[in-house]
Amino acid sequence: MLVPLIIGLNIVSLYFSNQSFMDKPVVGFSKLSKSKKIDWIVATYFDDRASAEQIIKQYWNSDEKLQQLHDEFIENTITNYYLPLGVAPNFVINDRPYTIPMAIEESSVVAAASKAAKYWAERGGFTAEVVSTTKIGQVHFMYQGSKDSLKRFFEILKPRLFSETASITQGMQRRGGGILDIQLVDKTEALENYYQLHATFETLDAMGANFINSCLEQFAKTLKDQALRFDGFSDSEKHIEVVMSILSNFVPNCLVRAEVRCKVEELSDNDIPDARHFAEKFVQAVRIAQIEPFRAVTHNKGIMNGIDAVVLATGNDFRAVEAGIHAYAAKSGAYTSLTHAEIENGIFRFWIEIPLAVGTVGGLTSLHPLVKLSLEMLGKPTAKELMKIIAVAGLAQNFAALKSLTTTGIQEGHMKMHLLNMLNQLNATNDEKAKMTEHFKSHAISHHAVESALNDLRMKA
Amino acid sequence: MLVPLIIGLNIVSLYFSNQSFMDKPVVGFSKLSKSKKIDWIVATYFDDRASAEQIIKQYWNSDEKLQQLHDEFIENTITNYYLPLGVAPNFVINDRPYTIPMAIEESSVVAAASKAAKYWAERGGFTAEVVSTTKIGQVHFMYQGSKDSLKRFFEILKPRLFSETASITQGMQRRGGGILDIQLVDKTEALENYYQLHATFETLDAMGANFINSCLEQFAKTLKDQALRFDGFSDSEKHIEVVMSILSNFVPNCLVRAEVRCKVEELSDNDIPDARHFAEKFVQAVRIAQIEPFRAVTHNKGIMNGIDAVVLATGNDFRAVEAGIHAYAAKSGAYTSLTHAEIENGIFRFWIEIPLAVGTVGGLTSLHPLVKLSLEMLGKPTAKELMKIIAVAGLAQNFAALKSLTTTGIQEGHMKMHLLNMLNQLNATNDEKAKMTEHFKSHAISHHAVESALNDLRMKA
Repeated sequence: MLVPLIIGLNIVSLYFSNQSFMDKPVVGFSKLSKSKKIDWIVATYFDDRASAEQIIKQYWNSDEKLQQLHDEFIENTITNYYLPLGVAPNFVINDRPYTIPMAIEESSVVAAASKAAKYWAERGGFTAEVVSTTKIGQVHFMYQGSKDSLKRFFEILKPRLFSETASITQGMQRRGGGILDIQLVDKTEALENYYQLHATFETLDAMGANFINSCLEQFAKTLKDQALRFDGFSDSEKHIEVVMSILSNFVPNCLVRAEVRCKVEELSDNDIPDARHFAEKFVQAVRIAQIEPFRAVTHNKGIMNGIDAVVLATGNDFRAVEAGIHAYAAKSGAYTSLTHAEIENGIFRFWIEIPLAVGTVGGLTSLHPLVKLSLEMLGKPTAKELMKIIAVAGLAQNFAALKSLTTTGIQEGHMKMHLLNMLNQLNATNDEKAKMTEHFKSHAISHHAVESALNDLRMKA
Repeated sequence: MLVPLIIGLNIVSLYFSNQSFMDKPVVGFSKLSKSKKIDWIVATYFDDRASAEQIIKQYWNSDEKLQQLHDEFIENTITNYYLPLGVAPNFVINDRPYTIPMAIEESSVVAAASKAAKYWAERGGFTAEVVSTTKIGQVHFMYQGSKDSLKRFFEILKPRLFSETASITQGMQRRGGGILDIQLVDKTEALENYYQLHATFETLDAMGANFINSCLEQFAKTLKDQALRFDGFSDSEKHIEVVMSILSNFVPNCLVRAEVRCKVEELSDNDIPDARHFAEKFVQAVRIAQIEPFRAVTHNKGIMNGIDAVVLATGNDFRAVEAGIHAYAAKSGAYTSLTHAEIENGIFRFWIEIPLAVGTVGGLTSLHPLVKLSLEMLGKPTAKELMKIIAVAGLAQNFAALKSLTTTGIQEGHMKMHLLNMLNQLNATNDEKAKMTEHFKSHAISHHAVESALNDLRMKA
């Protein structure tokens, strides 16, 4: 009991409030009103209750109806977490100009995207194309018995899987999508008795998670029901156990490709005095990311800075996109770069190929006012157009990162961007910020350097 | 030119404004004031300019100073993107109770976490331990010459790498961290002339990206300078080309493990009438995720729902965490599950092991008021404690997902959570929402069903 006493009252009171909470876990918390939830949290975890409550409420929107809309996106919402929504102008994609909205907290991502956009706009812009749009879902089940009987059963089952999901699929089908195919997959070599219904889907402008999962759960029901009635099964074979039915976020056939290219000598700019040397070093940097997983992971992380920022701003699910893309990066057995670069016949070419399952209808897209705004800013894209925009954002980010890594190094730009954050942390006034920004145009930035320069300035004042 | 005319004025005006923009890319956009940036965006991309401007400004915080703080996190900020900040109570981790803050837009994630927390609180809670905390950074360089000379050079170089970064590392060292080791790695088998300085770091409570990158850039400088002066090199050998210097987000030695366990018969609850059958099916579901990449990706995506929500709420970088974790999932050569389950001697055990490089000081942690609030809610954790909390959030999420997948299916719960979103989309009043929620307690939820039930209700009214 010495430690809490030494550290002080903060810990002691926390300790005690926790103890009483241990005896009585909160029951029915989710059913409390928002303000009662906040009361409980503030009373249980905060010493300065008034201040905690004030911070939580400071982030509420003044429009009550709008706030309620946001509260109802998830459960137990207490306030709005702010991510800055920035914009990166001057993107040219397939000859069309875009300003890309990006929701991200990391400084320098929007700046890097904007720079890369402008650089490539002056060199013909980005091109992008959707390679494929097939999505995947699986019913995982256990079956103990004759494989031939199962195959015969599946032949009879398959048309029923389509017909019994007709009420779910009719809307999607009318618009040109739906279930593409369903296959029986034997996975018993990997796990005893394990089989799948492996289904492929076209979900058009919807991300399609609800659609696919609803189809799959119906497949599972039909599978179990029909197995019980199939004469070709012995009594024990009739009892198929469905373990689970769920879409896959691994979508290697929902692919988009984006590219930039120009003559090597056209690469020159202020940071690039020697275009050929830059091009060679750049290609080398990409090659390193292709063969060295420690580098590949960070290389791709940078790409995701750009991708996730657009995914978030357009109301898509970045966890799904992240999982699908990283698994794609590892598909050959070794984790590798998502981008590629080459110099051929005097032409520098840099491209990305990634799987992207995103939607521009359904989900948050018609619900979150800033998502609607972001989509309108992008010209109300179809899902395919959005795939291209997102891939380009990723490629631009990677270009900017590799350009600074292979020329000035990444810290210079990063620390410059981070300077304002550091100054805010030190409670610098607007006047002090202006003076410090000027000062650090010619001085190396580090936490320590900023702190002492600001102290010096304050001493003089 | 027919298409725009058919689609209507919206497209025509967009087309023309874009055309003029094509002729004149925006120059110096980043230097415009926030309101001038918004003016340009609204004028360039929106037909209903007033409405677009109103939406952007509706999301500004009423406290100007607070708004400026958020604006300055990144570049070209126009407003705040809201992610709901929710809380999941009743977590018990190493016998200590927590309410975990989660920033996430996906409905049912917080609800699932809360349910899993309560379920396991009644069964002894979660245990978690940090396995290791080593971070990694590399200087990638090209050297053409004798390998023996390079090795001899590195022996002389190594102490200098430490001494010339002393001004950067002294603070970290004082607190018990710093550079752990630096090694010369020969990668020439994978790529001609390619070598690395591979360095390991301990960054304590900081995520450490700036610290590591600053050290690496100094290493690179020292490496190049000293090579020029090394007598053991021939003239051509002296010219080492540094391609880039950068930390790795692949941190397989910055590991945390979290676990739950109980007697198989204790697993029973309202959804689980047969504990043994549930345990076996659950273990099967985890095994499927271990051997089938299509399932593993979604399995892990669900884990990341929990992880990223806490990573965001605590001001950490979810792209870094995502990249590191997915690469770890692929480290064996086949993409596989991050969680594991077994039944042994009547005990059910379920655990996760993931790499996590996060910080509780630096970056946004002392800057974003809601990040500070989240960290205080968690009892101001050290980085190690936060690693445990985040791993537990991921494990809880996976438990909840597998529990519903292997029992009721995922759509039932998901659609229930999504019901409010659908009702909001249909502009349901609070009264209508209450009636619809009641109605759908006993009816299957789908977009179509919600729409027609609401229409019926409105017809009756």
